[in-house]
Amino acid sequence: MEIGIPPLSETAMDQARKRQQNLTKPPGSLGRLETFSVEIAGITDEPTPELEEAVIATVAGDHGVVAEGVSAFPQDVTAQMVANFAHGGAGVNALANTVDARNLIVDAGVAAAEYPGMDSVVVDKVGNGTDNIATGAAMSRADAEAAIEVGRSVVAEHAPEADIIGLGDMGIGNTTPSAAVTAAITGYPPEAVTDHGSGIDEETFERKVAVVERALENDAPDPEDGIDVLRSVGGFEIGALAGIALEGASRRTPIVVDGFITGAGALVAAQIEPAVTDYLLPSHSSVESGHSIQHEALRLDPLFDLDLRLGEGTGAALGIAVYKGACATLREMATFEEAGVSN
Amino acid sequence: MEIGIPPLSETAMDQARKRQQNLTKPPGSLGRLETFSVEIAGITDEPTPELEEAVIATVAGDHGVVAEGVSAFPQDVTAQMVANFAHGGAGVNALANTVDARNLIVDAGVAAAEYPGMDSVVVDKVGNGTDNIATGAAMSRADAEAAIEVGRSVVAEHAPEADIIGLGDMGIGNTTPSAAVTAAITGYPPEAVTDHGSGIDEETFERKVAVVERALENDAPDPEDGIDVLRSVGGFEIGALAGIALEGASRRTPIVVDGFITGAGALVAAQIEPAVTDYLLPSHSSVESGHSIQHEALRLDPLFDLDLRLGEGTGAALGIAVYKGACATLREMATFEEAGVSN
Repeated sequence: MEIGIPPLSETAMDQARKRQQNLTKPPGSLGRLETFSVEIAGITDEPTPELEEAVIATVAGDHGVVAEGVSAFPQDVTAQMVANFAHGGAGVNALANTVDARNLIVDAGVAAAEYPGMDSVVVDKVGNGTDNIATGAAMSRADAEAAIEVGRSVVAEHAPEADIIGLGDMGIGNTTPSAAVTAAITGYPPEAVTDHGSGIDEETFERKVAVVERALENDAPDPEDGIDVLRSVGGFEIGALAGIALEGASRRTPIVVDGFITGAGALVAAQIEPAVTDYLLPSHSSVESGHSIQHEALRLDPLFDLDLRLGEGTGAALGIAVYKGACATLREMATFEEAGVSN
Repeated sequence: MEIGIPPLSETAMDQARKRQQNLTKPPGSLGRLETFSVEIAGITDEPTPELEEAVIATVAGDHGVVAEGVSAFPQDVTAQMVANFAHGGAGVNALANTVDARNLIVDAGVAAAEYPGMDSVVVDKVGNGTDNIATGAAMSRADAEAAIEVGRSVVAEHAPEADIIGLGDMGIGNTTPSAAVTAAITGYPPEAVTDHGSGIDEETFERKVAVVERALENDAPDPEDGIDVLRSVGGFEIGALAGIALEGASRRTPIVVDGFITGAGALVAAQIEPAVTDYLLPSHSSVESGHSIQHEALRLDPLFDLDLRLGEGTGAALGIAVYKGACATLREMATFEEAGVSN
C-alpha cells in the first residue's frame, strides 16, 4: 500500500512560531494553544491556518466476536445507532453542532443493515460484520486492505474540503478487537489494554480478557504489519478509520483522535505509514485503560479528561473546539505593533 | 450587602438526571458532561437548558503596586490592551469568536485611560487604579463596595440576557493583589500562592512575594469579610468580577471562572455570599501555582490544563464550549424510545 504523506512544513511552522512571538500577549502565555497552532501550520503548510470546515467522521462496523458475550448491548444497536446518527439524535450530533462541525456517517461493515430514506449515510460495507476473532481471523487480508480503502475514499469523495477531521466510531463489541489491536501493536498484555467498554460486569470482563488472549494466540499477527494486525484481530470500522487518517494526512489535513477504537485505527495507520503520526492530534483521555497506552505509543498528550467513554467522535468534537481556538489566536490576534501595545 | 442567591433547582436537576439516563448512550458514558448538564439545569432551573447567549466579561483595572516593580510590563499596557479588546485583536476575542460568545469589555478602574471611538467599552471606573498595597490599603471600603456594584450593574445593564458568563481580567500587576486576596482568604502563605505572572525573573519574583507579605501585614484584613479583603489587598477589576459572579448567580446564570485573577474575584464573592459557589463552573488549570489553591477552596475541578497563563477570559472561553456541549447533549439527544434503539 503506497501512501505519500509529506513531511510537516518547516517554513510554515517557522512563520507561525515567529508570529506567535509578536502577538499581543506575554510570549508563551497561550501555552499548548501556541504549540498546536504551530503544529497545524506545519500540517496544513499554511502559516495562519483556518479550520473552517470541520468534519467528524463516525464509522460503524459489526463484530463477530459479540457471539462470545463480550458486550452489554445487542448487535442490533450498531445499525440502530447509525440511524440515530442520520437523524441527528446521538451524542456526536449534539457535540458536532456545538463546535460547528459536519457529521459524516459511514457504514463500513454493519451486519445486515439498511437505512431507508437516510441518504446522508455513506454505505460502503466491506462485509456484514467481521468473523469471530475468538475462533479465527477477523477478516481476509483483501478485506483488511478494502477497509483501509473505504476510509481513503470517504475522505476523497465525502470530505475533500475538510480543514480538520475528527475520527469517531460505532460498533457493538468493538472495544474487544481494539484491545487486541492495541496489545498486538504495542506489545502490552491483553489485561493491560482491556477494560469495561460500554459497561460490562466483572464476569463479562474476565471473559473479554480471555477472548483477547485467545484472539492473539489464534494466528499471532505480525505487529510490524498494520494490515496483518487488522486482518487478524481488527474490524472494518477500525480499518476505515486508519484509512481516513492516512488519506487525511496525505492531503495535509489534521486528524483528531477520539477514544479507544479510533486509537486502535490510528495505531494501525501508524504501522502502515509512520509519518501519519505527525498529522494526528489528541482529544480526550478515555476511561478505557488501554487508551493511555495508545497515546503513549502515538506520542499524543490528551487535552482533557472528562471521563468520557461513548466514542462516536464525541471527544474529538470537543477537541476540535480547542484546535479551532488555537488557530484563531494565531490568525486573528493583533501583533504588538498593529495594536500599539508596548512590548 | 444583600444579594439573594436562590438554591439550585432540585426539580430541574432530577428531570435532567432522569433524561440523561434515557438518552441513546450507555448510562454515564458522557462522564462529566452529564454531571455538568445536570448542574446547569439546577442553576438555570431549566430541565434542558440551552446556552445560546454566551458572554465573556473581561474587566480591566490598574494597580498602585506596580510601583514596586512586580510586573514584566509597564502600566500603560492595561489601557492599550482594553483598546485591543475593543478592536477585536486580543486572545480573548479570537477565542470568544471560536465559541460564539460575545466579548463584553469593562474598565472598572484603569489609570487615566480614555477610549475615543470605542463605544463598546463599558467605562465605569471606581478610580484611576488602586493605591499601592505594599504601603497601605488598596482602596477605601466605599470603593470596595462600589467595585462590587460595578460588576453587578455590568450584568444588569449589559448582559441581562446572558445564558452563561465567562469571567476575564486585564490589569498589569494584578497577579500580586490576586495572590494577596488568595492568601488572605484561604490562609495559605504568600509564597504558596505567588507565582511568575506574565513572566518575571527570580529577583522580581522574590520582591513580589515580599510585597504580598507586607501587604497582608499592613492592616491584616478580616478573611471572613470579602469586602474587607477587597478593600485591603484587592483591585477594582477583582471586585467587579466578584460582583458579576454574585449578580449572575442571583439571576440563575452559570459563571465560568478563568485564571488566577478571576479566581480571586470568585473567592471574594464566596466570602460575601457562599451560595455563589453553586453557580461557579471551572475552566482551565493555570500555570499560576495559586490557581489550584483557589480551586480547592471553591471546590472546583478544572476541565483541562493547557498551560495557559494569559487571563482575559481565554480559558473561560474554551470552557464555555464544553458547557455548551454538555447542555446540547442533554437537550438535543434522542431517548432510546424516540430513536428506536434497544436499551
